[in-house]
Amino acid sequence: MTTENIEALATRGRSLIRWAERRMPALALFKSELEARRSLRGLKIGGSLHLTPETAALARCLRAAGAEVVLSGSNPLSTRDEICASLVRDDKIEVFAHYGEDPASYHDHLRSIAAKAPDIVLDDGADLIAYMAQRKAKPGTIGIEQTTTGIQRLRGMETAGVLPFPVIALNDAPLKQEFDNNYGTGQNTIDGILRATNILIAGKTVVVAGYGWVGKGIASRMRGHGANVIVTEINAVRALHAYYDGFRVLPMAEAAPLGDVFVTATGCREVVAEPHFGLLKDGAVLANSGHFDVEIDVGALARIALERDEIRPNLVELTIPGGKHLYILGQGRLVGHSAAEASPADVMDLTFTLMAMTVEWVATRPIELPTNSKVIPSPTEFTERVASTKLAAVGVAHDRLTASQREYIQSWDVGT
Amino acid sequence: MTTENIEALATRGRSLIRWAERRMPALALFKSELEARRSLRGLKIGGSLHLTPETAALARCLRAAGAEVVLSGSNPLSTRDEICASLVRDDKIEVFAHYGEDPASYHDHLRSIAAKAPDIVLDDGADLIAYMAQRKAKPGTIGIEQTTTGIQRLRGMETAGVLPFPVIALNDAPLKQEFDNNYGTGQNTIDGILRATNILIAGKTVVVAGYGWVGKGIASRMRGHGANVIVTEINAVRALHAYYDGFRVLPMAEAAPLGDVFVTATGCREVVAEPHFGLLKDGAVLANSGHFDVEIDVGALARIALERDEIRPNLVELTIPGGKHLYILGQGRLVGHSAAEASPADVMDLTFTLMAMTVEWVATRPIELPTNSKVIPSPTEFTERVASTKLAAVGVAHDRLTASQREYIQSWDVGT
Amino acid sequence: MTTENIEALATRGRSLIRWAERRMPALALFKSELEARRSLRGLKIGGSLHLTPETAALARCLRAAGAEVVLSGSNPLSTRDEICASLVRDDKIEVFAHYGEDPASYHDHLRSIAAKAPDIVLDDGADLIAYMAQRKAKPGTIGIEQTTTGIQRLRGMETAGVLPFPVIALNDAPLKQEFDNNYGTGQNTIDGILRATNILIAGKTVVVAGYGWVGKGIASRMRGHGANVIVTEINAVRALHAYYDGFRVLPMAEAAPLGDVFVTATGCREVVAEPHFGLLKDGAVLANSGHFDVEIDVGALARIALERDEIRPNLVELTIPGGKHLYILGQGRLVGHSAAEASPADVMDLTFTLMAMTVEWVATRPIELPTNSKVIPSPTEFTERVASTKLAAVGVAHDRLTASQREYIQSWDVGT
Amino acid sequence: MTTENIEALATRGRSLIRWAERRMPALALFKSELEARRSLRGLKIGGSLHLTPETAALARCLRAAGAEVVLSGSNPLSTRDEICASLVRDDKIEVFAHYGEDPASYHDHLRSIAAKAPDIVLDDGADLIAYMAQRKAKPGTIGIEQTTTGIQRLRGMETAGVLPFPVIALNDAPLKQEFDNNYGTGQNTIDGILRATNILIAGKTVVVAGYGWVGKGIASRMRGHGANVIVTEINAVRALHAYYDGFRVLPMAEAAPLGDVFVTATGCREVVAEPHFGLLKDGAVLANSGHFDVEIDVGALARIALERDEIRPNLVELTIPGGKHLYILGQGRLVGHSAAEASPADVMDLTFTLMAMTVEWVATRPIELPTNSKVIPSPTEFTERVASTKLAAVGVAHDRLTASQREYIQSWDVGT
Repeated sequence: MTTENIEALATRGRSLIRWAERRMPALALFKSELEARRSLRGLKIGGSLHLTPETAALARCLRAAGAEVVLSGSNPLSTRDEICASLVRDDKIEVFAHYGEDPASYHDHLRSIAAKAPDIVLDDGADLIAYMAQRKAKPGTIGIEQTTTGIQRLRGMETAGVLPFPVIALNDAPLKQEFDNNYGTGQNTIDGILRATNILIAGKTVVVAGYGWVGKGIASRMRGHGANVIVTEINAVRALHAYYDGFRVLPMAEAAPLGDVFVTATGCREVVAEPHFGLLKDGAVLANSGHFDVEIDVGALARIALERDEIRPNLVELTIPGGKHLYILGQGRLVGHSAAEASPADVMDLTFTLMAMTVEWVATRPIELPTNSKVIPSPTEFTERVASTKLAAVGVAHDRLTASQREYIQSWDVGT
Repeated sequence: MTTENIEALATRGRSLIRWAERRMPALALFKSELEARRSLRGLKIGGSLHLTPETAALARCLRAAGAEVVLSGSNPLSTRDEICASLVRDDKIEVFAHYGEDPASYHDHLRSIAAKAPDIVLDDGADLIAYMAQRKAKPGTIGIEQTTTGIQRLRGMETAGVLPFPVIALNDAPLKQEFDNNYGTGQNTIDGILRATNILIAGKTVVVAGYGWVGKGIASRMRGHGANVIVTEINAVRALHAYYDGFRVLPMAEAAPLGDVFVTATGCREVVAEPHFGLLKDGAVLANSGHFDVEIDVGALARIALERDEIRPNLVELTIPGGKHLYILGQGRLVGHSAAEASPADVMDLTFTLMAMTVEWVATRPIELPTNSKVIPSPTEFTERVASTKLAAVGVAHDRLTASQREYIQSWDVGT
Repeated sequence: MTTENIEALATRGRSLIRWAERRMPALALFKSELEARRSLRGLKIGGSLHLTPETAALARCLRAAGAEVVLSGSNPLSTRDEICASLVRDDKIEVFAHYGEDPASYHDHLRSIAAKAPDIVLDDGADLIAYMAQRKAKPGTIGIEQTTTGIQRLRGMETAGVLPFPVIALNDAPLKQEFDNNYGTGQNTIDGILRATNILIAGKTVVVAGYGWVGKGIASRMRGHGANVIVTEINAVRALHAYYDGFRVLPMAEAAPLGDVFVTATGCREVVAEPHFGLLKDGAVLANSGHFDVEIDVGALARIALERDEIRPNLVELTIPGGKHLYILGQGRLVGHSAAEASPADVMDLTFTLMAMTVEWVATRPIELPTNSKVIPSPTEFTERVASTKLAAVGVAHDRLTASQREYIQSWDVGT
Repeated sequence: MTTENIEALATRGRSLIRWAERRMPALALFKSELEARRSLRGLKIGGSLHLTPETAALARCLRAAGAEVVLSGSNPLSTRDEICASLVRDDKIEVFAHYGEDPASYHDHLRSIAAKAPDIVLDDGADLIAYMAQRKAKPGTIGIEQTTTGIQRLRGMETAGVLPFPVIALNDAPLKQEFDNNYGTGQNTIDGILRATNILIAGKTVVVAGYGWVGKGIASRMRGHGANVIVTEINAVRALHAYYDGFRVLPMAEAAPLGDVFVTATGCREVVAEPHFGLLKDGAVLANSGHFDVEIDVGALARIALERDEIRPNLVELTIPGGKHLYILGQGRLVGHSAAEASPADVMDLTFTLMAMTVEWVATRPIELPTNSKVIPSPTEFTERVASTKLAAVGVAHDRLTASQREYIQSWDVGT
């Protein structure tokens, strides 16, 4: 790659980072606080993260607080070279990653980060921490993990006694579940379906499997686009919510012959699977919004398919015995990532502001912070603070309790 | 009152109870189980409850399980004589109450219940338990309280060491908050506003104070009627939800001059108060959905009002200095009760099925049930069961985990 | 009736008229124009109208423009005595009507109006014009009729050659159809259903028959309350709209066994009728929003019913062979009127401002106005003017074409 | 281009056409009728059309009816080579077009079509008819034009006396306006905005300029995604609809400082223009949904811009004096086409079924069809038929009038 190439790449990356940062005003606000406090001075932060414009914004925030930041990717396909180029050229952040690198290179890069002996380790899937577990960590090292999957792996390591240092489970914060899942994934799932198919949603019968935060976000947006939505659920309380929210609730076996489009958002496997394929309408569109490609049983489907035609990017037609055609989006991988662009910066702002606040909290080594190697819940105190920061950043003012109201609430039994 | 009068009254009451029971199918389903088990045989249940058709359905359910049931009212204005007449004539349930009785009579009636020495005490506001606290309770007595207010009073009694027996805090169950508040109160608040005013909601700027379950239910229904909704909130996380749900979020002082209609749903006092009155539009309509008449400061408003005109039932016009007219609904009392008919039987079904399940659980004296006099959380195990019963009762089937799915979920770290 | 009674009645009426007028700001704005112009001076206006607060506002507007106004009722059950008392005492408007009068009295009152030889005749159902057709009308008399039914009758009279003078068909204005039907009737239908039943709408399957302006208004509001809505339609284009708006579209015979609540809004008969009764769920609620009580075949239902129980005002339970219970609201009469309060003043404001503008137009005897006795279309020029007046009255400003934009639009072929 | 290339291209085109046709079931149903009737046998149809998969479906339908079909493009940038390749190889349809051809080639291709002397001319913008006007047309030729722009040009030609043959104005059919504009463009506008920006819509203040069918479709979908929508309008009746639908209605000058995103759908110029640029928020996103790039005054904006940065495809950042950044999507061209994929096949199905029915109607030379050269309104009789065909095709059954209902409707005055 020539110097000019890299320059052009970095310049393009800079534009994209600026575009993302503009939509991450809470992080920007907190960054300006950190810049003033320089509270991360002298600390080394190593991260294995999706190298996207939003992650760049986080890294630049930590850098502004005085930290030395070194990064590798957390998946060879999520690394964006223009972002890396800009971080290196413009922000003096060391990056070890490139798009599509092979496993050897990927692990080499994890090793480079570990070799830096970071004080704080940011992880997205626990690959870096798993790597660091193989050798002794510097005393005082602390990790922060932001995915469900990563936390599962870390809990396994904790049980096996191989977790190298304490790790905070950032993923569990309600701020992430209630916002990113509902508003972010709710939108990007629809976005992915439209980009892959260009179908009209109005009039379609859309079956949403799962009525958690993601499913709710999808169902209400599909309705907003004119779909007639059916919900399937395992959990009775969630099913009852879907019912009272005006959706038809059916078992998948009854929904299967009715749906034009299926979207899974359950975290479980075989939600649309062998017992259902034969029941589906000719032409049914199958999309998965959940993290793994097991919700729609794509393996089983591939096995029974007589023909396979790739119609457009992320849209494959499978002809099954009897002649029906089924359409799989993005190979059954999470459609908001595979066919669209994951959660918008606007809502990643919440997660990464929470991350930055947690990093600063860790950096101050509060006495509540355990020192033994275990998985630690995310501090709850930042929830309200991130929300307040975000509201201020988007220019939304809201009420505060007056002294009289505070008194009323505290002396509830007196007031009645 | 003549015998014919009572007969006619009871017959009317019967129709109303039948109408309510038809819309409480979960309770009916559980009642048929209880009838088969007769699991409350030999028990005496005393209740101080709002004597409505829905409560009659509950009482009849407990009676069908073999219990002896005796009832008094929990508020002289909520007792409906036709319901009492029917319970006495048709169900062999003793009732001590009549509409509009004076305090002496009301307390006399509490005494009558206490004198029966019930094994299980059902309370709605804690008046009966407070009365029973004045003398020694029969050993083994257990109470169940279903209001926030009652629980506050009981906690006060617990702290003061005067709680006479253990009491289960039924009110705290999520099943009540997420359903009755959201769907039930959400609807009856709008119903009350329409009955009191007959205003067109479409086009109105409606300010909803509070974005908890009640506020959410109101805001989404107002939008469904064509209102432009503004939300005020104290809590930043809730404010952020309102913002992402597409509502304008403002401090009340900024919302005050914009609103055509104000609805408070906060549980706090002085939400629309003296600092706001002068800012309101001429013609602003003020309604409170919360439990107490303190959310809109009706006292302060009465003090500054120059004139007062009762236009229609539950609609009073107040002329304030400067000549503006403000309209108060139902004297600032919870408008869904004062101007409409409280939560429909369809959703009370959930609360009362939970109540009936809790009564049977108490009746079996499980070892987890504490015996010392304190306030006990509602058992969580019934949440899923009530929801399942309701779904079955309204004819909604939903999915169950397959063996393969259960395995996948339990071995999460393996699956990834 | 004593003088004190009448005084009290008139005072109560005054409050109700004030409350209505406050929500009819377009009419108020136009009234102040008329007051300045006194353009109806010397004219006599006779009306046979529903004597409601909204009609009082119209009459007072015409009076303020200098007209002499004399009124009778247009239905003995829609006359409100307190309104009449106030018009007589406070506005010097002659009124010949009282609530519940018998047919002889009703016709006597029509005769009193006719005897006044009004210049302009306002009619609501054409009873007054039909009466006036029996004798020679004063030359130059002109009528204005505001109901579909009335216009049908007038067309019959026109065909039969007995129409006594030209009559303007105000009802056909799009301003009425698109607003009153959609927003006004859409709301009052739901209001009527709630007042009659207090059912929870959330979760219910609601079948809306007819997807015209009324049906659309009902369907979207039902959805806003959490219902799952099914639409039935005769017209394919409307059915296609319902489909693309996300509703299930089914023939009534297929919807019958699915619905919890049925609302007819078709203008046709036998929409829910004998072929459907046997298919309905036990407990189905039947309401009609249309003008006549023929949409649900209540006659046929009464014939087959084995038992009839009046549960609450406007709620009758019928037991049909096989033991199923069906619930009829307001005897199948238009539920927004029979169980609620018809269209709110806020939207009647549009119809009555249009009426007042039309009266002034007639009063100026424009040359476009035909003089032979026929039914004349409502002038279209007022549509935009009423809408503009309403917007101004509720404080809504909107854009105007700039000179440059006007040029662009007029020279469209040049611009491309 | 090699044979293998063309083969691969055609094969890819075939998949895309199949995918489109699957979502055009009304056309498929009508095609099978035409195939049986062969009613276009012996006719030559020449079209200048956007050579998309949907147009291919139309061409194949006409071919199946026996017509000889020859096509050229209607815009060099909308021609898709894979579609052309497939039509040529698989359907024996002659095509004269390729993507990105220069004007000389484009006009050459129009000439090739004209040289075929088609009996029926299909046009999309009137380029072909304008070309054919330059020489004498074969007697009996008839045209069908489907765009607003094209019809404007044809009316100009009619006035100038140069229209070469009668042309049917297909575009004016309500079936197109109410469906394609509302549901199709409503969706593709949002799709385009998301593809160009990946912003989160939830929480954004979105200003929709124009509340016609397109604006309504956008506004309701934006709300469904969690936006807070402001509407601007010139027309008072439309503004009043927006108000009653719960949107804020403001003049653009007042909306300008409030909006995060602006979408124009007016058909007018300078809707967001010089007077507004200075008022906009830093970061405002500007998108146009209307046909021409004049709604947002991009020329004026380019003139005042200090800097211009192309951030991603279809997303340009302009820095204006004072330092604010504004973001223009797709150069202000109709965003649903420039950044997404125009109206989905599902809704083009309506327009093209109407086109096919109109072609067959023309082919039968009905006596109602004028023979002199003028612009003829689209026959209204097909509206209901297309809607019925579509409903049947998507499996939606609906009610038909019974004999009794038909009698009731026809004898309305008798029934009351």
